[in-house]
Amino acid sequence: MDREALLRALNAVRDGAMTPEAAARLMGRAPFEDIGFAKIDHHRPLRNGASEVIYGAGKTAAQIVAIAGRMVAAGSENILITRLEADKAKAVGEALPLDYDPVSRVGVANRVERPLVGRVVVASGGTSDLPVCEEAALTAETLGSRVTRLYDVGVAGLHRLLAHVEDLQAARCVVAVAGMEGALASVIGGLVDCPVIAVPTSVGYGANFGGVSALLSMLNSCASGVSVVNIDNGFGAGYLANRINQMKGCDA
Amino acid sequence: MDREALLRALNAVRDGAMTPEAAARLMGRAPFEDIGFAKIDHHRPLRNGASEVIYGAGKTAAQIVAIAGRMVAAGSENILITRLEADKAKAVGEALPLDYDPVSRVGVANRVERPLVGRVVVASGGTSDLPVCEEAALTAETLGSRVTRLYDVGVAGLHRLLAHVEDLQAARCVVAVAGMEGALASVIGGLVDCPVIAVPTSVGYGANFGGVSALLSMLNSCASGVSVVNIDNGFGAGYLANRINQMKGCDA
Amino acid sequence: MDREALLRALNAVRDGAMTPEAAARLMGRAPFEDIGFAKIDHHRPLRNGASEVIYGAGKTAAQIVAIAGRMVAAGSENILITRLEADKAKAVGEALPLDYDPVSRVGVANRVERPLVGRVVVASGGTSDLPVCEEAALTAETLGSRVTRLYDVGVAGLHRLLAHVEDLQAARCVVAVAGMEGALASVIGGLVDCPVIAVPTSVGYGANFGGVSALLSMLNSCASGVSVVNIDNGFGAGYLANRINQMKGCDA
Amino acid sequence: MDREALLRALNAVRDGAMTPEAAARLMGRAPFEDIGFAKIDHHRPLRNGASEVIYGAGKTAAQIVAIAGRMVAAGSENILITRLEADKAKAVGEALPLDYDPVSRVGVANRVERPLVGRVVVASGGTSDLPVCEEAALTAETLGSRVTRLYDVGVAGLHRLLAHVEDLQAARCVVAVAGMEGALASVIGGLVDCPVIAVPTSVGYGANFGGVSALLSMLNSCASGVSVVNIDNGFGAGYLANRINQMKGCDA
Amino acid sequence: MDREALLRALNAVRDGAMTPEAAARLMGRAPFEDIGFAKIDHHRPLRNGASEVIYGAGKTAAQIVAIAGRMVAAGSENILITRLEADKAKAVGEALPLDYDPVSRVGVANRVERPLVGRVVVASGGTSDLPVCEEAALTAETLGSRVTRLYDVGVAGLHRLLAHVEDLQAARCVVAVAGMEGALASVIGGLVDCPVIAVPTSVGYGANFGGVSALLSMLNSCASGVSVVNIDNGFGAGYLANRINQMKGCDA
Amino acid sequence: MDREALLRALNAVRDGAMTPEAAARLMGRAPFEDIGFAKIDHHRPLRNGASEVIYGAGKTAAQIVAIAGRMVAAGSENILITRLEADKAKAVGEALPLDYDPVSRVGVANRVERPLVGRVVVASGGTSDLPVCEEAALTAETLGSRVTRLYDVGVAGLHRLLAHVEDLQAARCVVAVAGMEGALASVIGGLVDCPVIAVPTSVGYGANFGGVSALLSMLNSCASGVSVVNIDNGFGAGYLANRINQMKGCDA
Amino acid sequence: MDREALLRALNAVRDGAMTPEAAARLMGRAPFEDIGFAKIDHHRPLRNGASEVIYGAGKTAAQIVAIAGRMVAAGSENILITRLEADKAKAVGEALPLDYDPVSRVGVANRVERPLVGRVVVASGGTSDLPVCEEAALTAETLGSRVTRLYDVGVAGLHRLLAHVEDLQAARCVVAVAGMEGALASVIGGLVDCPVIAVPTSVGYGANFGGVSALLSMLNSCASGVSVVNIDNGFGAGYLANRINQMKGCDA
Amino acid sequence: MDREALLRALNAVRDGAMTPEAAARLMGRAPFEDIGFAKIDHHRPLRNGASEVIYGAGKTAAQIVAIAGRMVAAGSENILITRLEADKAKAVGEALPLDYDPVSRVGVANRVERPLVGRVVVASGGTSDLPVCEEAALTAETLGSRVTRLYDVGVAGLHRLLAHVEDLQAARCVVAVAGMEGALASVIGGLVDCPVIAVPTSVGYGANFGGVSALLSMLNSCASGVSVVNIDNGFGAGYLANRINQMKGCDA
Repeated sequence: MDREALLRALNAVRDGAMTPEAAARLMGRAPFEDIGFAKIDHHRPLRNGASEVIYGAGKTAAQIVAIAGRMVAAGSENILITRLEADKAKAVGEALPLDYDPVSRVGVANRVERPLVGRVVVASGGTSDLPVCEEAALTAETLGSRVTRLYDVGVAGLHRLLAHVEDLQAARCVVAVAGMEGALASVIGGLVDCPVIAVPTSVGYGANFGGVSALLSMLNSCASGVSVVNIDNGFGAGYLANRINQMKGCDA
Repeated sequence: MDREALLRALNAVRDGAMTPEAAARLMGRAPFEDIGFAKIDHHRPLRNGASEVIYGAGKTAAQIVAIAGRMVAAGSENILITRLEADKAKAVGEALPLDYDPVSRVGVANRVERPLVGRVVVASGGTSDLPVCEEAALTAETLGSRVTRLYDVGVAGLHRLLAHVEDLQAARCVVAVAGMEGALASVIGGLVDCPVIAVPTSVGYGANFGGVSALLSMLNSCASGVSVVNIDNGFGAGYLANRINQMKGCDA
Repeated sequence: MDREALLRALNAVRDGAMTPEAAARLMGRAPFEDIGFAKIDHHRPLRNGASEVIYGAGKTAAQIVAIAGRMVAAGSENILITRLEADKAKAVGEALPLDYDPVSRVGVANRVERPLVGRVVVASGGTSDLPVCEEAALTAETLGSRVTRLYDVGVAGLHRLLAHVEDLQAARCVVAVAGMEGALASVIGGLVDCPVIAVPTSVGYGANFGGVSALLSMLNSCASGVSVVNIDNGFGAGYLANRINQMKGCDA
Repeated sequence: MDREALLRALNAVRDGAMTPEAAARLMGRAPFEDIGFAKIDHHRPLRNGASEVIYGAGKTAAQIVAIAGRMVAAGSENILITRLEADKAKAVGEALPLDYDPVSRVGVANRVERPLVGRVVVASGGTSDLPVCEEAALTAETLGSRVTRLYDVGVAGLHRLLAHVEDLQAARCVVAVAGMEGALASVIGGLVDCPVIAVPTSVGYGANFGGVSALLSMLNSCASGVSVVNIDNGFGAGYLANRINQMKGCDA
Repeated sequence: MDREALLRALNAVRDGAMTPEAAARLMGRAPFEDIGFAKIDHHRPLRNGASEVIYGAGKTAAQIVAIAGRMVAAGSENILITRLEADKAKAVGEALPLDYDPVSRVGVANRVERPLVGRVVVASGGTSDLPVCEEAALTAETLGSRVTRLYDVGVAGLHRLLAHVEDLQAARCVVAVAGMEGALASVIGGLVDCPVIAVPTSVGYGANFGGVSALLSMLNSCASGVSVVNIDNGFGAGYLANRINQMKGCDA
Repeated sequence: MDREALLRALNAVRDGAMTPEAAARLMGRAPFEDIGFAKIDHHRPLRNGASEVIYGAGKTAAQIVAIAGRMVAAGSENILITRLEADKAKAVGEALPLDYDPVSRVGVANRVERPLVGRVVVASGGTSDLPVCEEAALTAETLGSRVTRLYDVGVAGLHRLLAHVEDLQAARCVVAVAGMEGALASVIGGLVDCPVIAVPTSVGYGANFGGVSALLSMLNSCASGVSVVNIDNGFGAGYLANRINQMKGCDA
Repeated sequence: MDREALLRALNAVRDGAMTPEAAARLMGRAPFEDIGFAKIDHHRPLRNGASEVIYGAGKTAAQIVAIAGRMVAAGSENILITRLEADKAKAVGEALPLDYDPVSRVGVANRVERPLVGRVVVASGGTSDLPVCEEAALTAETLGSRVTRLYDVGVAGLHRLLAHVEDLQAARCVVAVAGMEGALASVIGGLVDCPVIAVPTSVGYGANFGGVSALLSMLNSCASGVSVVNIDNGFGAGYLANRINQMKGCDA
Repeated sequence: MDREALLRALNAVRDGAMTPEAAARLMGRAPFEDIGFAKIDHHRPLRNGASEVIYGAGKTAAQIVAIAGRMVAAGSENILITRLEADKAKAVGEALPLDYDPVSRVGVANRVERPLVGRVVVASGGTSDLPVCEEAALTAETLGSRVTRLYDVGVAGLHRLLAHVEDLQAARCVVAVAGMEGALASVIGGLVDCPVIAVPTSVGYGANFGGVSALLSMLNSCASGVSVVNIDNGFGAGYLANRINQMKGCDA
C-alpha cells in the first residue's frame, strides 16, 4: 500500500466514509491474491516497476498455470516464467498463450510486442554459458531493453573480445557471464564506463566447485564498477540490467 | 588508447608524419606513467569516467605520496585514497593537500568542491557497519553524487526502516550495507524500484565467518534488482552507485 | 530407567525380593526391545514426553513395518514416521493403519484424534518450502498442537507478512521456514515475543550451497529469541515447537 | 506502533483531532529516538517483552554511555550490555550505575533486584566454556529467570553429567554449552523433556575451526527438542531460555 | 624387498653367484606382478602382515577377476574385496570362489575358516550405519579377529549404550561408527581404556555435509584414546582394529 | 594479430594500399570465424603453438561436428576433442575421421602420424586414475611427445615406484596423477630434476571431497619443482607437459 | 562407579547397611571432586588407565595450580599438563614440583621415574613440526612408553626416511607427524605392520589452511593401518600410542 | 644414493673390499648430515640439480646459522634462505656472508656471481604483490636465470599488459603473480606459447579468503599451458621457472 493510498484511506476515515476499524484492516492487508499455496502480488508493478516473475523451479505445472492464469486474468502482459522445464512448458502452453525458449528455459506468457530501448550487452566466456546468457538476454528483452549478444569472447583469446570493444562501449549496462575463472568481468570492467553485472556460472569441473571459482573471482574483481549476482542467475542479471538501462537521466 | 587516437595515428602514418614502426610502438604503449613499483594511468578518466583510485592498504606512505603526487602534478582533482590508515594519512597530508576521514579511512587529495547531483541512499543494519557505510558514502560524494545516510535500520526493528520508505523510494540507487544475516538488502529490494547494491560486512562473530553469512544471504536474495560487491567493499559500492546515479536518460 | 524405578528395585533388594545381581543387571539394562537391527525404546514417553519417532530415510519398508508394528503392539498411538517415500508408505500402509501425506512425506501410524491445544504458527518464505513446512506442521499437530499456516510470506514482499502480524503475535511459538537468504526468521523475530524456531531449507540454487546460505543467515540473526535447527529439518522444528507450545505455566 | 495505537490514531482522525497527513506521518514513524549513530527503540518492551540490549562489541565507550544514558533517562532498568570489554566497562561505570562481570564481559546498567522465577539450567562441557556460560546465565537472570549452573560435565566423563540428572530434569529449559565435539547437547537432549538450547563455543583447536565442529555437531543432533544458536552466543541462548522459561501455561 | 633378502643378494654377489649389475637390478625391482592396469604385490603379507586388499569401487568385474585370480593362483586365502557392487559380485563369483555380503558390499575370495582371536567391538549410533559397521566387522573377522556387534546404541538414548558397558569394557579395541553428530566416539572413549577407532558416516542430511559433521566431531573428541579414519571407511577401521587386537604383549 | 601483421598493415596504410579506417577495423578484428554459438580461432597455432582444442563437455554432437568440420576444412590436423562421451563420439565419427579412446573420452579428428620426440612420463597412484592418466598421455602424444606410462605406483607400496626410478629420471617432464592423499607428486618431486606437473583426481570417497584432498596435498608439496593443474584435468597436464618437453635448448 | 562398586552397594542395601535412598544417591554420584570451576575425576585411572590430564590452554595459572594441587594431594604422580605457556609454567612451578619443556609446552607435575616399556616411534616431516612431535613423545614417555624420535624425514627426500626403516619396523606403534601435504603417514603406513597414528600439523602456509591439507591427506591415506587425530594434537597421538604400545598380548 | 654409487658399492662387495653387512648399512643410509633438529642433504645437487633451500619460517636464527654454516663448510654457494625475517637476517648476516632483500625476505648466503641464461618473465597484477614477485625473481636469478620484471600490469587496465606483449612472448617461462581475482594468468596464458606458472597471492580482502579466490581462478584457467603453485609461493614458482628455463633442447 503506497503513501497515496494511505492518505486516501485516512481521508475516507475523516470523512466518515470508512470506519477506523475497516481502515486498520485495510492498511494491514496487502493487495495480493491468496490462492492457497501462493500469494499473487498484483500491485508489484506499482512498487517495483515490473510484473511479478514466476520462478518455475519449485512449482508444478498446475501451480504455474494457476498463478499465471490469475495474472493473465488480472491483465498482466509479458509474464516471465524462469527455470521452466520443457515438459512443464508444454503443459503450461496448452493452458495459456506461451512463448518458450528451451535453451534458457524461459517462458513468456501473454507476450505482446513492445518497443525496445537503450542498449544492454550480454557477453559470455564460452559456448557452455549459453543458457545463462539467454536467460539474462530474454529477461532484459521481455522487460523492454534492446540487447546485443557477444558470446564466446573469453579472456584466453583476448582478440575476440577486443574485436567488440565498440559494442561494449556503446552499452548502457553490460552483463558479463563466465564460468571457470570468471576473469571476463574484470577485463570488461576495465574497458567500459557503464555498470557491469557479473554472472558466475557453474560451467567447469573440479576446483570450480559449481561456480564458486567464478563467483569469488568476480567478487574480487580489481576493476571498479562491477557487481555480482548469484551463480547461474541469468534472470537476476537481466532484470537488474534492464532496470539500469531504463533509468531516466539524472537532473541534478 | 581509444579508437579516435588510433585513427589519428593511422592518418599520421598515411600522411607520412609517422613511420609504421613508431605507430606500432605507440599503439602497443598505453598512456600510463611508469614509476617503477606502479604504472599510473592518467587516461583512465577518458576510458572509465573517473580518476584512478589509490588503494592504500598494500602501499607505504611514500608510495602513496609518489603516486598521488604525480596525479596532482598531472592536474587530477578529488583523488580518492581508500583504506588509508591514520598514520599514513598524517604522512600523506604533510606532502599533499588531503581531506581525511578516520572512520572510513578515506582520504581525498586535492579536493575541490563540485555540485552534487541525483540521489544515492546508503542504508545500514547497525552502528558497527559505519566505517563501510562511510567509505561508500564518501566515495559517491567525492565522485559527485548527493548522498542520504540511513543508518541503524536493521530488519529486526522493521519500523525503523519503514519510517524511511519515502527516502528509499526517492533514491536513484540504494547501497544496502549489513553484516550478520544481511537481510537488509532483500527487504529494501522489495520496497524500491531502483538498483540496490548490497555490501556484506564482516561485522558479527561466530558463524558469520568474517562476512560470509551476509555475503551468501545477499547473493541469494529473493528480491530482484539486487547485486553484490565484496565483503566490506564500501568503495566498490559507492563507485558503482555513483555510476548508476549519474546515468543519462535512456533515449530509446 | 527412571529414579522411581531405581528406588523400587532397591527396595526389592532390601526386602529380599530381588538379588543384588539381578538388580545390577536390571539397572544396567534399559527398557528397550532389541529386534536385531534396531532397539525400540518403549519407555521414551516417560523420559521425553513423546513416542519414539521413526526416521524413515535409512530404513527399508520391512524394517519400518517391524519397528512400527512392535510399537503398535505395545499400544503406541500417533506414531510419526518421517521421510517416508511414497512407495514405502504404500507397503507400510498395507501392513498397518497409516495416514500419509505425500508432500511432506510424513506418515502417522495408528492415528487417533486428540484435542489440539495452544498455537504454533508455521510461516514460510516461498511455495517451494512447502514440504518442510508441512513436515513441521504435521509433526506439531500429531503431537497435539494447534497449527496456523502462513505460507509464501517472504521478506521481498513485506506487506504479505505484515498482513499477518496479528496471527504471528497470537502464537506461542513460531516456526520460520525459509531457503535462499533466510531473512524471514530475523524479520519475524523482530515482530513477536514468543520463541522463534528457524528452519533453513535447501531451496534455491548456486551460492545457496544446499541451504547453507539460509542456515548462516539464521544463525546470525540480529533478532533475539531465534534458534535454529538443521537444514530441511521440519520434523525437529515441529517437535520442539510442540514442546514449547505445550509448556505449563511458570509458577515462580 | 502496535495495533491499538493505530486504532487510536485513526479514531483521532475520524474525530478531527488529527489531520490525515499528521496521522500518515505518525504511522510511518516508529517510537525510536535517533541519536545520530543509533536509533534507540524505547518501545521494544511493548513489542518484544524485554528492553533493547546493547551489543557492546562494535561501539565506543562514549557511544555506549550515550545509548544507555538515554535508556536510563527513559526509565529502563536492568539494561544488559554484552561483549563489554573491561576498559570500556570502567568508563561506562563512571558515567552510569553499572554491575559488571569480567568473565562474561556482561554489564547491567541501572540494575534493580527482581524476583527470579522458574528454572533454567546452564550446563557446560568444560572449564574453558565459562565465559559463554556466564553470558547465558547472567542474561537469563537479568531478565528474571532462576538459573542453575552445571559446569564441567562433558560427555567424556558421563558420570559427572549423570550425577546431575535430577537437576536437568527439573529444568524448564536447558542451555547446553560445549566446544570441541559438542556432544553435550545430544546427550542432554536424550535425558530431558524440556527445550534444549545448544550453544557451540569456539573452544578447542585445529579442526574445530573456531567452533564449527561443535556447531555442526549440534545442528545434527540425533536428539529431538534441541535447537542451536550462533557460536559463542551465550546472550542469545540466555535470552531465549528466559523467554521459554517464563512462558505462561497453555490453556488449550 | 626386506632386509634379509637384501643380505642374501649381497652375499650372492660376494660369492660371485650374482653380478653386481644383476643385484642392482634386483634390488631396484619389487616383488610385484605387473598385469598392465595393476601391479599385484605378492609380498605384502611379509611387509604388512595382511594380504593386499582389492578396493572394488574403481574397477571392472574383469579387472577384479584378473587381480584376485592371480592372488588365488599365488596361494592367497581370504582375499578381501571391498566396495563390490552386487552385479560385479555376481560376475566375480562365477569366476572364483566368493563369499559376498550385500549389505556391506564386502566379498571374500578363497575364503577359509580360521580361528578368531581377541575381541573387537563394533558399535554404531543408528540403523542406517549398518553397511559401514558390517564392512568393519567383516574385515576384522576375515583378518582373524573375534567381533561383537553393538548396533543402534546412539547417545540420545544413553541407556541403550550403558546396557552394554560390560561388552565395551571387555574389548581390546572398539570401532565406534556414527553419522549425524558423531558423539558416540566421545562417550565410548570415556567408558573404556582400549583404543577407540572412530568412523564417521555420511548418514544424515542438511548440515551433515556428507559426513563432515561427524568427522569434525570425532577429530575434536574430548575423550583421549580416540583416533579417526575417513568418512564411511569401515574397511580401514576394521583393518586397524584387527591389527591392534592381534598385538603381542609388550615385554618391556 | 601478431606484430608482423600489424607492421604489414601499417605499411599498407603508408603506401596508400589500405585506408586508415580499414586498418583500424582490421586491427580490431581477430582472425576467428564466427559460427554463431562459437568463434573458431584459426590463428591460434601461430600464437600458442597448438591447434585450438575442443572441450566436448558442454557441447552437442552437432556443435562439435560444426566446429571440428570448419577446422578440418581449414586444414587442421590432429584436432583434439576432450571429454567426448561415447554417444557423441559415435555421431562425430560418422561425420568426420575420428580416432576415439573410450577410457579417457579423448577423440582426435583428422589424425595423422607424426614423429614423437622427447620423453614425458605419466605416473599414477592407482588403477582408478586411469581415465585421467590416459587423457594426459593421449594429449601429449597427439601434440607430438613420446610418453611412458607408469601406472599403479602409489606411495603406499614404495617399491613399485622405486622400481621405476630410472624411467622417472629419464623424463623431461613428469605428469603425476593421484587421488586420495595425492602424495605421489611429492615423492616423485624428490626423485627427479625435471618439472613435475601434479594432477589431483577425484578418485576416493568421504573426506576426499571430490579431489580436494589431493589438490591441497599437491599445492602444499614439500618438494620443489612441482606445480598443479585442476582436479581431473588430464588434458591440461598433457598439454603443458608437451610444451615443456618440446622446449628448445636454452642458449644463454 | 564400576560394576563391582555397584554390587557392593546393592549388597549393603540387601544387608540393611545402607538405605535404598542413600544407595540411589550414591549410584548417581560420581567419584569426582567439585572445586567450582572444575570437577576433578580421581577415579579416572580405574576407568581409563591413566590420570586425568590437565589441558592448560583455557585455564589460568591459579586454576591449574588448584586442580593439580588436589591431584597431588590425592596422590597422583606424573600429572600431565599440556599447552602450558611459559609464564603459567613459571607460576605453577612455584606452587608445585613441575618439570617443564618449553618447546612442546608440556609440564609434568609430581614427576617420578618409571621404567619405560615397548617402543613408540615419533617421526616427523620437518623441523617446524618439532613442538607437536615433542608433545607426543613426552606424553608417551610420561605414561610409560619408550620413545624413538625420527625427525626431519619428509617424503621429498625419501632416502632420509628409508635410512630408518629398521627403526620404523621395530616399533609397536608409530606416530607420524607432518604438515604441508602430510604424505609421511602414507609412506610410513606402507613400510610397517604396526598401527600408525597420523598427526597433521598446522605448519605451512597458503592453501594448507592451518593444517587442513595435511589432515585431509592423512584421512585419505591409501595405506591401511593409519588413523588420524586432530591438527597439532600431539598429546592425543602420544596418549593413544602409549595405550597401543602397552597392550597385553592377545590370548585368543 | 644414486645408481652409480650403488654399483660401486656392489663391486666393492664382490671384490671383498666391503662386507655385505657394511654395504647393506651403507645402502640404507643417505648422504645427509644429521645435526639433531635437521638432516642436511649435501647430495641434493646430484639428485635435484639445485642446492637444498632453507625455509626460514619455522626456524630460529641459530638453527639457520647451523644449517647454512654446514652447507658453506661443505662448499655450497648461493644458498637460498626464504621467508627470512629481518631480525633473523641480521643475526645470520653476522655469522655468514649474506645478501638479504627485505621486500621478499630472501637471503642468499655465500653468494657468487654466475652468468644468467635464458629468459624468465615475472609479471604481477598489482603493487601489493611485490614481495611474492621478488621472491620468485630472486630465486630464479640465484639459480641462474635471467629475469624480466613486469609489475602492475593487472587485467583491469589491459593496455598496461598489452604494452609488454613483446617481453612476454620473448620469455621461455612466465611467472604470473596475482591476488584478488587472479585473472592475469589466464590473460597471459592466451598471449604466449611458453609454460606459465601462476602464483596466487593473499593480497585482497573479504571474499578473497587469503588467496583462495586467486587460487581457484588460476586452477580453473580457461587458457592452456598454465599450472599453479601454492598461495604466496614465490619461491616455488621461481624454482620451477628456472628449471624450465634452463632445459636443454629436445633432441627427439
